[in-house]
Amino acid sequence: MSNFGGRWSMSRFERLTRTGQLDRAWVESELIPLAESLREKVDNGQPLRGRSLYLLFYEPSLLTRTSFERAMGLLGGTPYFTEDASQFFPVTTPDYIENIIANLAAMHMDMVVLRSSDQGVMEKAEEEAEAQSMPLINGGSLEDHPTQALTDLYTLKREIGAVDGARIAVVGRIDHRNVSALLRGLAMYEGVTVTQVPFSGQADPDVVSECEAQGVTFEMGTMDSLSEADVIYLNGPRTVAHAQLLKSRGAFNLRIDEEFMAKLKPGCVILDPMQRSGDFDILVSDSRLANYRQAENSLFVRMALLRTMLG
Amino acid sequence: MSNFGGRWSMSRFERLTRTGQLDRAWVESELIPLAESLREKVDNGQPLRGRSLYLLFYEPSLLTRTSFERAMGLLGGTPYFTEDASQFFPVTTPDYIENIIANLAAMHMDMVVLRSSDQGVMEKAEEEAEAQSMPLINGGSLEDHPTQALTDLYTLKREIGAVDGARIAVVGRIDHRNVSALLRGLAMYEGVTVTQVPFSGQADPDVVSECEAQGVTFEMGTMDSLSEADVIYLNGPRTVAHAQLLKSRGAFNLRIDEEFMAKLKPGCVILDPMQRSGDFDILVSDSRLANYRQAENSLFVRMALLRTMLG
Amino acid sequence: MSNFGGRWSMSRFERLTRTGQLDRAWVESELIPLAESLREKVDNGQPLRGRSLYLLFYEPSLLTRTSFERAMGLLGGTPYFTEDASQFFPVTTPDYIENIIANLAAMHMDMVVLRSSDQGVMEKAEEEAEAQSMPLINGGSLEDHPTQALTDLYTLKREIGAVDGARIAVVGRIDHRNVSALLRGLAMYEGVTVTQVPFSGQADPDVVSECEAQGVTFEMGTMDSLSEADVIYLNGPRTVAHAQLLKSRGAFNLRIDEEFMAKLKPGCVILDPMQRSGDFDILVSDSRLANYRQAENSLFVRMALLRTMLG
Repeated sequence: MSNFGGRWSMSRFERLTRTGQLDRAWVESELIPLAESLREKVDNGQPLRGRSLYLLFYEPSLLTRTSFERAMGLLGGTPYFTEDASQFFPVTTPDYIENIIANLAAMHMDMVVLRSSDQGVMEKAEEEAEAQSMPLINGGSLEDHPTQALTDLYTLKREIGAVDGARIAVVGRIDHRNVSALLRGLAMYEGVTVTQVPFSGQADPDVVSECEAQGVTFEMGTMDSLSEADVIYLNGPRTVAHAQLLKSRGAFNLRIDEEFMAKLKPGCVILDPMQRSGDFDILVSDSRLANYRQAENSLFVRMALLRTMLG
Repeated sequence: MSNFGGRWSMSRFERLTRTGQLDRAWVESELIPLAESLREKVDNGQPLRGRSLYLLFYEPSLLTRTSFERAMGLLGGTPYFTEDASQFFPVTTPDYIENIIANLAAMHMDMVVLRSSDQGVMEKAEEEAEAQSMPLINGGSLEDHPTQALTDLYTLKREIGAVDGARIAVVGRIDHRNVSALLRGLAMYEGVTVTQVPFSGQADPDVVSECEAQGVTFEMGTMDSLSEADVIYLNGPRTVAHAQLLKSRGAFNLRIDEEFMAKLKPGCVILDPMQRSGDFDILVSDSRLANYRQAENSLFVRMALLRTMLG
Repeated sequence: MSNFGGRWSMSRFERLTRTGQLDRAWVESELIPLAESLREKVDNGQPLRGRSLYLLFYEPSLLTRTSFERAMGLLGGTPYFTEDASQFFPVTTPDYIENIIANLAAMHMDMVVLRSSDQGVMEKAEEEAEAQSMPLINGGSLEDHPTQALTDLYTLKREIGAVDGARIAVVGRIDHRNVSALLRGLAMYEGVTVTQVPFSGQADPDVVSECEAQGVTFEMGTMDSLSEADVIYLNGPRTVAHAQLLKSRGAFNLRIDEEFMAKLKPGCVILDPMQRSGDFDILVSDSRLANYRQAENSLFVRMALLRTMLG
């Protein structure tokens, strides 16, 4: 397979650490069709029987870790993990991540999914994984989260069909890896407009510049802007305490109720990657709320990715 | 299968959250024979191969969690868990349990076992699990523990045969879910007398009323009453500190030694669900001490339950 | 198989709790050949399918726990564990370890690997495991670590061939179970000389006496002695804080750089069991650094041990 636009093609896709490595042709012609096919099959033949995946998580995670565990299990492989990797290895020594990657290779693990927000750790892990010929996936780093981007693109494909020309509002904590990953994913498409509706902060300026260079239009918006959006992407505050602070300032005033939903486009879709705390109040049942379908999509897209990288 | 006395029969037994859902005919004709059959087979054919169980435990647990994990493994299925669910999801938001149940359904988990002592959480979980068509088992809630009741009834069946007409002494911390579950289980039988020998507190008055209405006779007793009991059910203090407080007051004076055993009926049986801390001092080896057989029974009864609900 | 020199032979090797139980004939004729054979086979036929191993770890561990988990998985068996066993059972009651071993037997676990540095716990566990006919492996106790010794002996066999007559320098924290286990393992060989190069403390005097009685020669050395060593065994400080204290005193001055390596024998080998914190600064790539090969060997030697004890 050839290489599109400086991005990696599948044939040398042994480590996925940056959303920028993805290209549209691969996502649309390879990964999403494979995810669709895995979704339809009750029996996938367990192609990863005997293969192993180590979940090296330095932060708590529900959906990312559980979906990778379950994806591996559904494909017949075996997930290994510790509950808190920082208890298991000396994170205070400079080379700890190289040490642990080399040790996991010595244990004949077939792949590592790493979550760490420590500056530079993902890059060091990637370098060591390459030296060890160990497949590696970024399961959430300080500034990126490529499998969240894949989940979101797959969800948009299923929910609204064409991403080209779409108007996407990002709401809440938008200076966060989930939003950065989404923006980088959207930059693969044509004519996308992103409306920023932050509760505080704004999207990472480097990511914005990078995406603008690829043709994304950015604008600032308010809650009123949501009525024009094709996609509303909610990303919750970091902590419950932060959510309460924002609410006390009147900065966090989003109630997803019938009144709110009535103002939105009939064909729009609301995504929410389900952050761990202080999420939005969802007081209504409405088919445009796609967050649980998005969670289910994360399972199939991760199955497809594991199948591709380990198969 | 028909429905006995307002309780659920197996055919619509998709969620087991209350001991009161059980009925004697199902326990005696379906569950216990299946547990006996699983106990005898070295090779059960792994009927749950490919099926999954999520252990959502908000409190530490040794026997309940380990026995469910092992039961699932012995049947060929896969258990998933986190060590401490409260680290994984925002328990401070009002709808957290609905969120996590819906997310586990999105992960295509086949069943959830939930342990939580938070008021109302089991009920909310049950409602959401029903909406998601997700099988659910109460693995220990504030006021009930139906699989402990099943374990205890199965143990009584094996140890003393007939429960009808038995005299059962409950000793120690009797205002606890283990005792409440046992009492509700005993209420399915005829002519049962329960002697309460509390170190502090007393059995939940609502549970007592409910069981009296079903024909159980309650009386208060002392350590001397144990000599007349067919079954002695020990339930330890909540914490080591509480055990020490009770001992310092002279309220916790049970030493299970030869002198103690000599006073008991030759054919009696002592159960102890093995609480995590401050348990009783067992200073003697005696075949009437059935606590490890009870632990083993918990494995087979949970295997039978998983087989029934997921098979 | 017969019994060599008071040590246990394989036929009654149901519990491995002390390095002193091992004998050279069994290690060289049985265990190492089996480890070599498992290393060469891509498909080992999964001989432990359906068998289970409980990892009862009262301390964090990366390599020991992960290698046992992976070893069990590669052989087709199922590992069970808790992240922190002390959260799961009342370690404050005197008989907690007997209780948990008996309960794990009641759960039909096929084997336990126990890590605990509590005085006397391994001995009590062994006694109860014997009563329960439960295979048990010491995964690291206060004063011994027999599977680390097996890993190290297997590594020496692969790296330098003959251990008889070798000169081995132990460097760093030498009053530690890893070093005690190594010394006991070396005592099975002839004409071994051990040079102690401690940063603080010295090797356990009881272990030294025991090994001297079996023919090991001990001497004290300095960093300069390393140039004569066939094997350099590094064992890091207990904590990062301790490492910093030692460095501030000038007692911990080992930098593994080109200058250091140039002084060593061309055919020597450096082992390092990869303690969790405060490890040595390795600033050079050199084939004599065998620590990751040692980690890989730990996987195969533990596979061989599980195969032998559970097969």
